[in-house]
Amino acid sequence: MNFIEISTSKAFGGMQRTLEHESEATLCPMRVAVFTPDQPSGAGLMFLSGLTCTEENFTVKAGAQQRAAELGLTLIVPDTSPRSREGSEIIADDPAYDLGQGAGFYMNATQEPWATHFHMEDYVVGELVPAIHEQLGVGEGRLGLSGHSMGGHGALTLALKYPELFTSVSAFAPIVAPSQVPWGIKAFEAYLGKEADWRAHCTTALVEDGKRFANEIFIDQGLADPFLEHQLLENAMAATGQPLRLEMREGYDHSYFYIATFIAEHLDWHNKRLV
Amino acid sequence: MNFIEISTSKAFGGMQRTLEHESEATLCPMRVAVFTPDQPSGAGLMFLSGLTCTEENFTVKAGAQQRAAELGLTLIVPDTSPRSREGSEIIADDPAYDLGQGAGFYMNATQEPWATHFHMEDYVVGELVPAIHEQLGVGEGRLGLSGHSMGGHGALTLALKYPELFTSVSAFAPIVAPSQVPWGIKAFEAYLGKEADWRAHCTTALVEDGKRFANEIFIDQGLADPFLEHQLLENAMAATGQPLRLEMREGYDHSYFYIATFIAEHLDWHNKRLV
Repeated sequence: MNFIEISTSKAFGGMQRTLEHESEATLCPMRVAVFTPDQPSGAGLMFLSGLTCTEENFTVKAGAQQRAAELGLTLIVPDTSPRSREGSEIIADDPAYDLGQGAGFYMNATQEPWATHFHMEDYVVGELVPAIHEQLGVGEGRLGLSGHSMGGHGALTLALKYPELFTSVSAFAPIVAPSQVPWGIKAFEAYLGKEADWRAHCTTALVEDGKRFANEIFIDQGLADPFLEHQLLENAMAATGQPLRLEMREGYDHSYFYIATFIAEHLDWHNKRLV
Repeated sequence: MNFIEISTSKAFGGMQRTLEHESEATLCPMRVAVFTPDQPSGAGLMFLSGLTCTEENFTVKAGAQQRAAELGLTLIVPDTSPRSREGSEIIADDPAYDLGQGAGFYMNATQEPWATHFHMEDYVVGELVPAIHEQLGVGEGRLGLSGHSMGGHGALTLALKYPELFTSVSAFAPIVAPSQVPWGIKAFEAYLGKEADWRAHCTTALVEDGKRFANEIFIDQGLADPFLEHQLLENAMAATGQPLRLEMREGYDHSYFYIATFIAEHLDWHNKRLV
């Protein structure tokens, strides 16, 4: 797998690039945004985005480059699904915002028409993480994982399932119980089928079933968020003893304005664990 | 004129709002993004955006709210042109990115089909500035003006023509000689006609023709910007004695990554002049 540079812009003394590569996991070209600070420490933070996003949304809206540049932290932001591109094969899609392209849910689909390309779990942990170690020289033993909404679900489930790959994990307004809320159930039915074991892809269920992350998990939540539904995970973590830092932000909603306000606090928290 | 709230999100302790109002200058509904810090000082900065932008681009991409919140500075970001909206009258447009909607050039069009609605000069100085004084209680005698690209052209020309309204002016990668470059000539021909006096809408010509801003003008320019064409203005200002701070940024392009990197420096510079 080789990265091809699609765009590059100087930002805060470092370089913000969009890279593309052929993926063996999703069998299509994938894009990833990478911010490399002027003086990289070798530590990295991967950020998984939410429904409807590409690699671009967090990159242009969260304002994370400023603190990342100060800390020497490399930022890696993958796309949220396989995607049809000009000149490439047409990838399955759905007109709804919460299924198909832009809504990969960081899992491996087993049901048609998704089973061919929608392998975002294999893509992130099996392909992208090794590639950033080997080709960018970043994050080996020093990789943090974070995400927002559907990407918070991705960050928490992947960190619990692959704790050997990630040193630290945080999430903004994550979907923590997708097997119990409408937009999780819709995706799980489509990608995995009604008969599959959904508990392997649900943060709350993973914790209940004994999965642990060695270090504290940091969950951030706006209290004016219309999608607020953190209580299930809080209860599960309290019951099982999984260490949790939970920050509830008065008046903040689900938007990137909320993420931008607190991203530096998350980068500082990850960076302390990645040095 | 009354502002109607379209959206609101808490950001950096303050409130980021999108407001809409009927405009007498453009004869259609106009939108403006306003960031109000938690502890507003009463000073304001208006930012004029570039080609293709709405009130949203600077608001979500520049990351200006963080420093504005620290300084107590209110940010006011108008749209770049009149615009067709669902349920409202259809406004004239052109398929090109550099004419019509998203490309108002902060001037009053006299030629059809633009002459009815495209009165962005009257809108900004005659309608929006008084409205933010009267309805938001911001910026009377303490209003800075800045902008990017086409919006840099807007900021410089409007500050030179209406120096009584603005205390300070800065610009990122401004179009400084629109009457001498292709995308300026195209807009001027369409909006003003070939026979009009273009010099009244061209920063370089305004300075050459004797217009002065009482305080130093701050112009910021990336040296990797493909649209780089600052030399004409530099020469005009040097010849006429208009005080100028010119910052040339090695490696930076024309993007919002460039603006985000230096916006805090501009806010600090304006704020010193607005206290």
